[in-house]
Amino acid sequence: MDRRTFVLLSASLLTSSFLPGENKTGQQSKSDAASGKTEDDKRPIIAMVIYPEFTALDLVGPYQFLSALTDYRVVIVAEKVGPVVTDTGMSIYAEQSFEECPKNVAVVFLPGGTSGTIAAMKNASLKRFVAEKAKTAKYVTSVCTGSLILASIGILEGRRATCHWLVRDKLSRFGVKPVNQRVVEDGKCITGAGVSAGLDLGLVLIEKLAGKEYAKQCQLWFEYDPKPMFDSGSPEKARKQDVSMLQNMVTEFRVEIEKLAKSSKRK
Amino acid sequence: MDRRTFVLLSASLLTSSFLPGENKTGQQSKSDAASGKTEDDKRPIIAMVIYPEFTALDLVGPYQFLSALTDYRVVIVAEKVGPVVTDTGMSIYAEQSFEECPKNVAVVFLPGGTSGTIAAMKNASLKRFVAEKAKTAKYVTSVCTGSLILASIGILEGRRATCHWLVRDKLSRFGVKPVNQRVVEDGKCITGAGVSAGLDLGLVLIEKLAGKEYAKQCQLWFEYDPKPMFDSGSPEKARKQDVSMLQNMVTEFRVEIEKLAKSSKRK
Repeated sequence: MDRRTFVLLSASLLTSSFLPGENKTGQQSKSDAASGKTEDDKRPIIAMVIYPEFTALDLVGPYQFLSALTDYRVVIVAEKVGPVVTDTGMSIYAEQSFEECPKNVAVVFLPGGTSGTIAAMKNASLKRFVAEKAKTAKYVTSVCTGSLILASIGILEGRRATCHWLVRDKLSRFGVKPVNQRVVEDGKCITGAGVSAGLDLGLVLIEKLAGKEYAKQCQLWFEYDPKPMFDSGSPEKARKQDVSMLQNMVTEFRVEIEKLAKSSKRK
Repeated sequence: MDRRTFVLLSASLLTSSFLPGENKTGQQSKSDAASGKTEDDKRPIIAMVIYPEFTALDLVGPYQFLSALTDYRVVIVAEKVGPVVTDTGMSIYAEQSFEECPKNVAVVFLPGGTSGTIAAMKNASLKRFVAEKAKTAKYVTSVCTGSLILASIGILEGRRATCHWLVRDKLSRFGVKPVNQRVVEDGKCITGAGVSAGLDLGLVLIEKLAGKEYAKQCQLWFEYDPKPMFDSGSPEKARKQDVSMLQNMVTEFRVEIEKLAKSSKRK
């Protein structure tokens, strides 16, 4: 086991080999990744779905951990292949379109955002892709307001889930039970709280897909031993005035979510 | 102050306005960001330097926090404009080339990696850019093995700094004092530990550039209240066998660093 783990980790974490041209993992070559080409990799897919104005860290937190799995292939999927602009300006490249994404999707993942997420909740082709892949996926996952997209599709109906603390309560408008917890698991659905919770979700998913020991080794590799200089990362710990200030900032966002909840009820 | 903070945070964090076309922040428009065009924004620059096979989370952790600063403009800079492939296959778009990057760089940032970082330490144009901007920058910063690039340029000479735990000791080969700490500050140089330490570095930089209260508000916005399911994120906490296993994996990487240290001594 330890020998196997070593080989797996070595292969996975040191994909960037010192021997040029060598491909230790069977992962698609880097130029293929950039160009969005498909190739002969038959491993189950972790489909990380992106859309205009998603939040970069929502994606990259879990992405970094999930990329350490050797028995799965992480693919960034969007409506079209090419750069997708996040809500802060950084562009991340989508390797595959919804049409190109292979059938064997083991994990579906959705990042959050604000107005971009509202648009995604109205995007029929994104919702169709997620709904279809979710049927056969082993896990359906999200970070931050990504859970609102899953909720709007009906995937979380009757389940426990989490979301960014500022709009977590809105999950109930889609028949979902909001839970105040960093990562919430209910059956095949695993949701993470706001933005930075993606790192904790990533670790949970590694544990599910490759076991506890491998997850711990990845935590050590990524030196995930967080030490924020302040302790204001949740509304329970932050100053009351900061909590109210941020609540005021999302009034319009909450109205938009509410509208979508109402229209989804009518259907 | 609270009113000002509110306006700043609102502008910064809700750039993705619900009113289409409105630009609350003066940030470059999203299409400009994607196309790498320059524009009329005169704010001081936070230049986040990327290179082939850097580690995605090293960049995106601090990027997410720094993007919340309204008085600074975050720019992803590389040798050429266009997608840069990380060490796990994801491509992130460089908005500006070294030549295009404006003079008013307030913060220089370098992510780490493994073989890609070795290549960066040998890349004359990258080193020239970083050395030049570091002279006038307010802060010179890094995450993970990014500090080895700074060290190879001589920027950290005689200073205290940190790095990924697996190669932290190698800093001393470049005349730098290695410190076992999540974020290390020595004068204008602020370095973070391995990969996920970028989130903690981001918070430190926000505190420096916009004050303690703003940093706490950002921590709450990004819900940075980490709760990893295991506590194996440092060699002091992890199982001894995992520590040795990972140490064995980087033997070749350490040899490459050593070679660079020797050749830099000869100059």
